[in-house]
Amino acid sequence: MSKPSLWAIPLGGLGEFGMNMLALRTGNDILVIDAGMMFPEAELLGVDIVIPDITYLKQNRDQVRAIVLTHGHEDHIGALPYILRDLNVPVFGTRFTLALVRKRLEEHGLLEKTDLREVLPGRHAEIGPFEVEFIHVTHSTIDCVALAIRTPVGVVIHTGDYKIDPTPVDGEPFDLHAFARYGQEGVLALFSDSTNVERPGYTPSERAVWNRMEELFRAAPRKVLVSCFASLIHRIQQVVDVAALVGRKVGFVGRSMVDNVEIAHGLGRLRIPDGLVIRPQDLRSFDPEKMVVLVSGSQAEPMSSLSRVAVDNHRLISVDENDTVILSARIIPGNEKAIFRMLDHMFRRRALVYYDNNGGLLHVSGHASQEEQKLILNLVRPRYFTPLHGEYRQLFRHAALAQQVGAVSGEVLLLEDGHPIEFTDDGAYRREPVPVGRVCVDSGSLEEIEQVVIRDRQHLAEDGIVVPIIAIDKHTGRMESRPEMVTRGFLPPENGTEVLAAARDVILRTIEQSNTEEKRDWSVIKEKIRVDLKRYLNKQTSKRPLILPVILEV
Amino acid sequence: MSKPSLWAIPLGGLGEFGMNMLALRTGNDILVIDAGMMFPEAELLGVDIVIPDITYLKQNRDQVRAIVLTHGHEDHIGALPYILRDLNVPVFGTRFTLALVRKRLEEHGLLEKTDLREVLPGRHAEIGPFEVEFIHVTHSTIDCVALAIRTPVGVVIHTGDYKIDPTPVDGEPFDLHAFARYGQEGVLALFSDSTNVERPGYTPSERAVWNRMEELFRAAPRKVLVSCFASLIHRIQQVVDVAALVGRKVGFVGRSMVDNVEIAHGLGRLRIPDGLVIRPQDLRSFDPEKMVVLVSGSQAEPMSSLSRVAVDNHRLISVDENDTVILSARIIPGNEKAIFRMLDHMFRRRALVYYDNNGGLLHVSGHASQEEQKLILNLVRPRYFTPLHGEYRQLFRHAALAQQVGAVSGEVLLLEDGHPIEFTDDGAYRREPVPVGRVCVDSGSLEEIEQVVIRDRQHLAEDGIVVPIIAIDKHTGRMESRPEMVTRGFLPPENGTEVLAAARDVILRTIEQSNTEEKRDWSVIKEKIRVDLKRYLNKQTSKRPLILPVILEV
Repeated sequence: MSKPSLWAIPLGGLGEFGMNMLALRTGNDILVIDAGMMFPEAELLGVDIVIPDITYLKQNRDQVRAIVLTHGHEDHIGALPYILRDLNVPVFGTRFTLALVRKRLEEHGLLEKTDLREVLPGRHAEIGPFEVEFIHVTHSTIDCVALAIRTPVGVVIHTGDYKIDPTPVDGEPFDLHAFARYGQEGVLALFSDSTNVERPGYTPSERAVWNRMEELFRAAPRKVLVSCFASLIHRIQQVVDVAALVGRKVGFVGRSMVDNVEIAHGLGRLRIPDGLVIRPQDLRSFDPEKMVVLVSGSQAEPMSSLSRVAVDNHRLISVDENDTVILSARIIPGNEKAIFRMLDHMFRRRALVYYDNNGGLLHVSGHASQEEQKLILNLVRPRYFTPLHGEYRQLFRHAALAQQVGAVSGEVLLLEDGHPIEFTDDGAYRREPVPVGRVCVDSGSLEEIEQVVIRDRQHLAEDGIVVPIIAIDKHTGRMESRPEMVTRGFLPPENGTEVLAAARDVILRTIEQSNTEEKRDWSVIKEKIRVDLKRYLNKQTSKRPLILPVILEV
Repeated sequence: MSKPSLWAIPLGGLGEFGMNMLALRTGNDILVIDAGMMFPEAELLGVDIVIPDITYLKQNRDQVRAIVLTHGHEDHIGALPYILRDLNVPVFGTRFTLALVRKRLEEHGLLEKTDLREVLPGRHAEIGPFEVEFIHVTHSTIDCVALAIRTPVGVVIHTGDYKIDPTPVDGEPFDLHAFARYGQEGVLALFSDSTNVERPGYTPSERAVWNRMEELFRAAPRKVLVSCFASLIHRIQQVVDVAALVGRKVGFVGRSMVDNVEIAHGLGRLRIPDGLVIRPQDLRSFDPEKMVVLVSGSQAEPMSSLSRVAVDNHRLISVDENDTVILSARIIPGNEKAIFRMLDHMFRRRALVYYDNNGGLLHVSGHASQEEQKLILNLVRPRYFTPLHGEYRQLFRHAALAQQVGAVSGEVLLLEDGHPIEFTDDGAYRREPVPVGRVCVDSGSLEEIEQVVIRDRQHLAEDGIVVPIIAIDKHTGRMESRPEMVTRGFLPPENGTEVLAAARDVILRTIEQSNTEEKRDWSVIKEKIRVDLKRYLNKQTSKRPLILPVILEV
């Protein structure tokens, strides 16, 4: 018999932020941990999301036993609907995580075909030769787990995303004892979250935002709008509780906010007192002095509710003078301009806008800072350590931190995507790279989300490219004459003229339905044009050309 | 005789970051303060810089007496070469400011035609009915002034950009006494810098970076690279002085770094001990343990020296194992991804990279924080106050800060670009908006910088659009087949094929001359293609089409 061996193969998230995915392999059995997506950078024009290249898994299709999810954030589950098309394997996750997955798979028409297996923190599952324990950890959503995976070579611990919150909102503490127990027993390898390795000290508890929220809610002369990530159920819980405490009722606005609240409430993980909720249709008429509204769109995504509320282009609510607006979220690098443009619209309307931690914490991170990372290293005392989740400098600094702590008895292994490591009883060996990379996905509009298009040269040759050119008068904000359309490989000449003429009308309509503030914000107007045009052209021609709107000020 | 009246007309920088420009008008005389540019946002594809629309000044061409500059940063002088083409008026500025302007005008072939008038801090100039005193202030470059402008209605103070540095590197303190004197006498209106209004407390002195620099220079096992803004002469002075102190010699790399050092040194404003400078051609052979190199490109601009050094694609130096790299600059929002990608390349090469203030200050701001802004308000005690330089929320918060201080006897006036205010002895009145806006400029490559193209619909109709589509294999980094070119309105069909075929070769060459790391960085490769193609097509066809490279991973 050959000696036992364990391969760890990072397929995403090591050297980049997002699309986390790690494969473990022993003999002919592969276990995949997480299947995340990332949002495209601005350079990836015309792309909706980016997922990991799973060539390696497809090449070893028969050996993949399961995908195990650590929690329900997009950078850990977002690639599932695309990957399951190619690789229909069982998916393990906790209750809330699977509820989010179920929703997503339903939209993609994949729910029936998928074998979802619910797990409980503290329990074990046998998956081929892997025995997996799910360990409760605290993070910026609920039902998060780390994994302790018993393999023929030893125990591997994968922290998932975590912070060590000493006073979690739901009273369910980080399971330090499980980490201690495995550390006592002996751990082959620790894979751990590097996101906040640049931050000294401890990440504050989620509860740390309570005081400032209470202060602002009490001081608010009119209605209060709070925006946070929709999956941050504990933040939502605190907003609900503070609202109840100060005698305000609560409304929810935005698809992701409403979905997440419904799911968490349905699972009993969000407690909302009877009679506290304002129905959407009552928001406009409700006494503004008695209301708090949770709105999704904290990152000022072009079509999000908060973006539209900010320019008075939302059906359910508006921002008015003396309203209090609280951005209870990190301003993610890359989103600053859009976020501040959105906040400026609110300032212009004379809202009281709070968006930084200067006057008291309005947001805390969900990721471990240096002292928590050291604590995990000291508890687990692994033979090998590999930093996960981060750009290169973050992985590097986490590796350096581990060296400094000195709790790793063997080696600190700095890996990047596609670089496998093989563990045996004798040591850890770097192996030949496997194919990895980004796959760009055009996920389709909501009605037609089942049509997934992988953006590549082949697709471009078939579906072509459309460059609508829109000239907007910078003084009046009005469009100068009809938009021009530059196309290539998109339509046969016979009926092309007609479709393109109609497409011009679609653009005109999109612009007409936008207000002046939206028209001045090129990123918003371009995204609206792209989405509307995509839907129209797809309906008319069944094609999905790459659409690159160009706006000129004249 | 009509009653005296003074109009203030913001033409740029109020409600946006950059392109600062304010006009003052009394009777038939207009004085313009600053003529700044801004860098385009990602949405403004194919544009190099953005300048203010000066329609208002052109409409009143005969009345414009001069442009007065507060200091030499691009957001205060960068539009000059474009504006002077339309509006040839005298330009007033301090010695260092005019030296930078001279360089720029020379490149544009405008130096001969321009009337530059040097001023000294503490002195006055009569410009039509305006008597202007230049007041020395501290900021992140040298020779910066605030302006006290005596007008028929009263004194107006314009702070320019400033911080109140109690211990400036050159020993020339902020002229508090001038501000106090005018405050004593009575000031009609104060216009003041809002950039850092979100920061509580005091901005640290420029000297605050000395200790950490010395610590890192002494600890450095091999050569030290420091990157800062090239105009930050006091930072450069400190790097030079610390290097001398610890027994290292200094090199300068990057066009803007070399230019600024030469100018400041030539004016006696940068003191460099004899024999301290390493010649560029000696950098590669010099003992790395004895050298410090100042490199421009702290914002990871795609073609900058530091970006190229990071991927070992620079003629003069490279980053090697155990080199120390110090990013002594703010990471400007919007640039994070590019900067961290650049730093990752250095981490991969096992450099010791320092980029944040966690271990000690490596960078301090040049702008006043709240306590300094309060101090200025209390010293000047103006009748009217208008926040300058900032996005809307910053102007709003600066206005709120002024209300809170209570030193404004009349009114706090929150203005935006194009909204004039008229001051008379009776009061301040908001007047009808004047035309303002952004003008996008394609400034041409270096050899041909005199050809300036204003990007508008007219130009697009004449010069057309070119969309090169490049497919890169994500596993190998190699280009898959030849690039495709989608064009519109660019070339007549007769010789178009030939030019486009040659243009494909240009793209191939650009890609060949880039190394793997550059090829993986789409923003870099797209910018290189855009610049090379622009130069080539302009040479061949005398046209400047809008060039929008698209990269696909296959």
